[in-house]
Amino acid sequence: MRIVHFLDPDGQETYGIPDNVGGALRLTGELFQELVPTTNTVKISKLLAPLVPCNIFGIGLNYSDHAIETGANPPEHPIIFMKPTSSLNASGAPIYIPKCCNHGLEVDYEAELAVVVGKTVRDVSEQQALDCVFGYTIANDISARRWQKHGGGGQWVRGKSFDGFCPLGPVLVTADELPDPQNLGLRSRLNNVLMQNGNTRDMLFSVSRLISLLSQDTTLLPGTVILTGTPAGVGFGRTPPVFLQPGDSIIVEIDGIGSLENNIM
Amino acid sequence: MRIVHFLDPDGQETYGIPDNVGGALRLTGELFQELVPTTNTVKISKLLAPLVPCNIFGIGLNYSDHAIETGANPPEHPIIFMKPTSSLNASGAPIYIPKCCNHGLEVDYEAELAVVVGKTVRDVSEQQALDCVFGYTIANDISARRWQKHGGGGQWVRGKSFDGFCPLGPVLVTADELPDPQNLGLRSRLNNVLMQNGNTRDMLFSVSRLISLLSQDTTLLPGTVILTGTPAGVGFGRTPPVFLQPGDSIIVEIDGIGSLENNIM
Repeated sequence: MRIVHFLDPDGQETYGIPDNVGGALRLTGELFQELVPTTNTVKISKLLAPLVPCNIFGIGLNYSDHAIETGANPPEHPIIFMKPTSSLNASGAPIYIPKCCNHGLEVDYEAELAVVVGKTVRDVSEQQALDCVFGYTIANDISARRWQKHGGGGQWVRGKSFDGFCPLGPVLVTADELPDPQNLGLRSRLNNVLMQNGNTRDMLFSVSRLISLLSQDTTLLPGTVILTGTPAGVGFGRTPPVFLQPGDSIIVEIDGIGSLENNIM
Repeated sequence: MRIVHFLDPDGQETYGIPDNVGGALRLTGELFQELVPTTNTVKISKLLAPLVPCNIFGIGLNYSDHAIETGANPPEHPIIFMKPTSSLNASGAPIYIPKCCNHGLEVDYEAELAVVVGKTVRDVSEQQALDCVFGYTIANDISARRWQKHGGGGQWVRGKSFDGFCPLGPVLVTADELPDPQNLGLRSRLNNVLMQNGNTRDMLFSVSRLISLLSQDTTLLPGTVILTGTPAGVGFGRTPPVFLQPGDSIIVEIDGIGSLENNIM
């Protein structure tokens, strides 16, 4: 099932199956329990992020070509950071350049496959790991590079935390429709210029391995979102570097999911 | 008001004002809206963490004596990391040594003042910052040092994230009862031996400055918890190092709040 989360014309928060002409078949029920289609098509007044996560984990340097462009060695264990729920953003909504990023350009894009955990799991094996996946969506792991590095004392959370820095969506595709998450092309386009062009098959730690490792001694709750890392081509790895500026359009596409689009303000 | 969060004998989640003999005056209403005392005293069957946070931020190296013991320079900006909500723990509950910490001792304690944000704020000035504070509680920022460093590729989140690694409580003291958060003695005791003995006046970034800086371009939602850093005396900074082991008792005390007690299993 392809699920969108939106405000209907009455301002009511709704889940639905998109009809690709601006409306959706309304779904009733709870996201991780049972969503049941109605016969009622409603207009999508405003798209929302597909869910409000309980925790957002990010994985650093999970594609070797990206690790190389940052000058880092591929990691021995997954590099795990977090983004606060306040950073959540939706497709079609603006990304504002933070006022505290006014010492020169530094805001960057990162095209990522986002995994949405739908069941409580802990110490799950790699073989069983995908059973807890409710579905997949697209993420843009927006990162203020100066705050990610010097401004955060080496800890990445600060530079990944500003309001609007976690666009997710536009659609949440249930896992049954994407049985193999390791063969999905993903791309980013800045002002219609192709910037990243990767495939999830090149992840250093696969989705099932990431879930298994993250769940070691750690309960993953329903609503946990895992951003699985980005391939090469981000702005700060380019010569000369390219950073996001007001007026830019940034799009992340993943095969079989769709296109996450945001304008920079 | 001093607030505890607990299960009553019927297993119902309840807020109350503790009577210090195992019971509490039941409160009705919502934590950040209005909690109203009833005349009904109930037994505390099981203490819970004072709240389920929406986001848990931690601050690294916020006391210069602790920065020195770790070998780091005092930071120019607050060092911000996060702990997932799944790491939440309560006073009186066990802290389990994670199975993945079985390559030698590495689990450490950190006595911290925890700030509970009760109102939505963003870009708040240092002068206005304390207005958003609902109250204070005690935290033990349990940290697996190997995972915090090498095992996490330099990012601290992994080593701070394991289940049970964020004990909070036992009581949430509303801000009106602690008008000056910068003059509170805080201590940790391992098996009744004093390990840390600091005062919040020695924070490099005060509570109001932390809130102001954290809220730059970042919405702090009600239920955000900020762990404000730890003074000197943690286990890995000692000669020889001291780490937590099954059978240990670890207590964190803060003047005017109380005593957060956990046994290691």
